[in-house]
Amino acid sequence: MREVRFRDPAGSTRVGEWTEDGIRAAGRTYDESEIDVLPSAEPSKIVCVGLNYADHAAERDSEVPDRPLLFLKPPSALSSHGDTVPLPAGKERVDHEAELAFVMGEQARNVSADEAMDYVAGFTCMNDVSNRDDQRREQNWVRGKAFDNSAPLGPVLATPDEVPDDAAVELRVNGETRQSSSRAEFIWTVPELVEEITTYVTLEPGDVVSTGTPSGVAPIEDGDTVEVEVEGVGVLRHGVSED
Amino acid sequence: MREVRFRDPAGSTRVGEWTEDGIRAAGRTYDESEIDVLPSAEPSKIVCVGLNYADHAAERDSEVPDRPLLFLKPPSALSSHGDTVPLPAGKERVDHEAELAFVMGEQARNVSADEAMDYVAGFTCMNDVSNRDDQRREQNWVRGKAFDNSAPLGPVLATPDEVPDDAAVELRVNGETRQSSSRAEFIWTVPELVEEITTYVTLEPGDVVSTGTPSGVAPIEDGDTVEVEVEGVGVLRHGVSED
Repeated sequence: MREVRFRDPAGSTRVGEWTEDGIRAAGRTYDESEIDVLPSAEPSKIVCVGLNYADHAAERDSEVPDRPLLFLKPPSALSSHGDTVPLPAGKERVDHEAELAFVMGEQARNVSADEAMDYVAGFTCMNDVSNRDDQRREQNWVRGKAFDNSAPLGPVLATPDEVPDDAAVELRVNGETRQSSSRAEFIWTVPELVEEITTYVTLEPGDVVSTGTPSGVAPIEDGDTVEVEVEGVGVLRHGVSED
Repeated sequence: MREVRFRDPAGSTRVGEWTEDGIRAAGRTYDESEIDVLPSAEPSKIVCVGLNYADHAAERDSEVPDRPLLFLKPPSALSSHGDTVPLPAGKERVDHEAELAFVMGEQARNVSADEAMDYVAGFTCMNDVSNRDDQRREQNWVRGKAFDNSAPLGPVLATPDEVPDDAAVELRVNGETRQSSSRAEFIWTVPELVEEITTYVTLEPGDVVSTGTPSGVAPIEDGDTVEVEVEGVGVLRHGVSED
């Protein structure tokens, strides 16, 4: 099941199913072009993971840490499928980072890896848009990673059965592949991430955890079209503009 | 005006006025002992500032940075007046940090310092509870600063006219003064913080910005009673327990 949240042409917020024939909700089938897709979750926070693919850690000249590198994005960072993401003004380098994200279905605190999947509603796509000018200069990546629209998320929430253990994670800019890897390359698995995060922080229903990006991160620019594709989930597509 | 949010003995959530004679709401006056005080805001995020008093920067052997050090706490970090804050399990050192916090009244993005106070609803007290074991070891202070109950906030939201420009900021543990300074010592003022943060991040109504702590940070332990007092706001009091 691939669930999608959207505003229909009458302005009602709907939850439907994303199928090959269109989006089914409220007794009818909508075409993607006639609806406004909303982010695939309504998180109270987004917990992000850095350096969760060994190849990306090497690319950034970073050692693989002994536990997950965590950082936060607030709800104001969200964008969704079909939106145009404004780049933060006056920066030299803003990069894409394709990520497989998961969404919590139940409140989770002190949850062991063994039980973790009982708390996960499903998977979605995220682009962890990263302002390198500021990320390099600050202790905590707020200007660098938590700015407005730095978290395009969607278009669907796919139940765990839809997404294989070795799901491909890819990113294209204007049709050209920039990142291509697989969930099989994770340093920390989804259950391990749930255990580590919930040792410290309660994850609420709807909260998002984004699992890090593979190698191939590169700049995005005004006019680009970015596609994040996760096997079993689908394609998150957004534009890019100057602020 | 000092506004307080609380649950009354019948379970209704009330917004009242904190006065010397008690808490006035719903046509009656409540005693503090009969109500459950809620956090003084319902933020979608808490933006925290590090090293905003020159004396605390010296104490931590940190140079004063050229712009505010920012970090985030999520809504799950909140606690309130009268709560008992559990220390994260198995840590050697968890410190108090007394802070003057402000609460947004209007959505703010790209707001200049000159206009900033038009967007601020008022001031409150916060304890930025800090797990030093993990803070020292991580790039972004998630385990160190964003854990559950690391942000006791309250008890009241005081309008700006109640809080002098040189408002005293103090913290006591079991009645003994540990921190004592004043808003006059800020490196960055409230309007300057609003301008810097909203250059990158939208602040929503109810969002909290906590303005950093003065010198005197020190450990808290099981059984302690912590009081954060900001002149013009009042006293935020909470207990401390082992997890």
